[in-house]
Amino acid sequence: MEKLYYPYEDFLADTKVLTQKIDWEFDAIIAVARGGLSLAQLMGEYYNLRSVYGINTIGYEDTKKLQSVDVFNIPELKDAKQVLIVDDIVDSGDTLIEVLKVLKKVYPDITFKVASLFYNKGAKIAPNWYVKEAKGWIDFFWTVDMLKNDNITGNN
Amino acid sequence: MEKLYYPYEDFLADTKVLTQKIDWEFDAIIAVARGGLSLAQLMGEYYNLRSVYGINTIGYEDTKKLQSVDVFNIPELKDAKQVLIVDDIVDSGDTLIEVLKVLKKVYPDITFKVASLFYNKGAKIAPNWYVKEAKGWIDFFWTVDMLKNDNITGNN
Repeated sequence: MEKLYYPYEDFLADTKVLTQKIDWEFDAIIAVARGGLSLAQLMGEYYNLRSVYGINTIGYEDTKKLQSVDVFNIPELKDAKQVLIVDDIVDSGDTLIEVLKVLKKVYPDITFKVASLFYNKGAKIAPNWYVKEAKGWIDFFWTVDMLKNDNITGNN
Repeated sequence: MEKLYYPYEDFLADTKVLTQKIDWEFDAIIAVARGGLSLAQLMGEYYNLRSVYGINTIGYEDTKKLQSVDVFNIPELKDAKQVLIVDDIVDSGDTLIEVLKVLKKVYPDITFKVASLFYNKGAKIAPNWYVKEAKGWIDFFWTVDMLKNDNITGNN
């Protein structure tokens, strides 16, 4: 399987591309934790939105050995009318489907749309905007950079 | 006033230093949004903790022109006993004091400690661990990198 190292520089460039693609105004951002956290921080700064929230999910196998997803820490969305959900990748789509289901139930009057950096075309649901197609395993910088030993500068 | 550009490379190196300093075990991380979001993502990956949550604050001037802070989206902490709060900088300390007050009230049986990249020694409260003293304005990469025009690669 193809394996891609995804450094900060590519993340930055792709986040810029993503903001160019998003032709929609929104008043809050929800990061699917952990994957969407850095993306939400950069986008919150870029759009000058302080309303940047997290949401959490846990995947588990239910009694019938089907993959299920629990969604928790549903954010208080204050006066938001249009909310962008961000994640690093829409892979199977299972998490996103459940996140959208729960959010739409709690907030029936809010419009939710989804932006991600990567999208696996085999997913059960597509994001509204994405930058790259996922064709294999991705080693995101936030996962692997901390494990490298070559850049402790000690300049403090 | 001294102004520091804080690139991703320094953030990564300092986050490594921070993990070396933290001599404490914790079972969840709370990111003060927006500042602590990327830090929480890297640390969550490093410590292999999926329990990475956000918390939100709004600062405002109250009727007596004092700076006040509202804390909301208090995370559901499940079975956590020891929780690390992370933020980019402890500057005045106003936000951190209020976050700790609210969390300790809601979760009297949980121990909370605080880690930040920067600490202004004039703050009203100190983090338990930090990496660098803040001596002026800091342009964090998540704030300024998106505004630069030199690195859209278009390699998609």
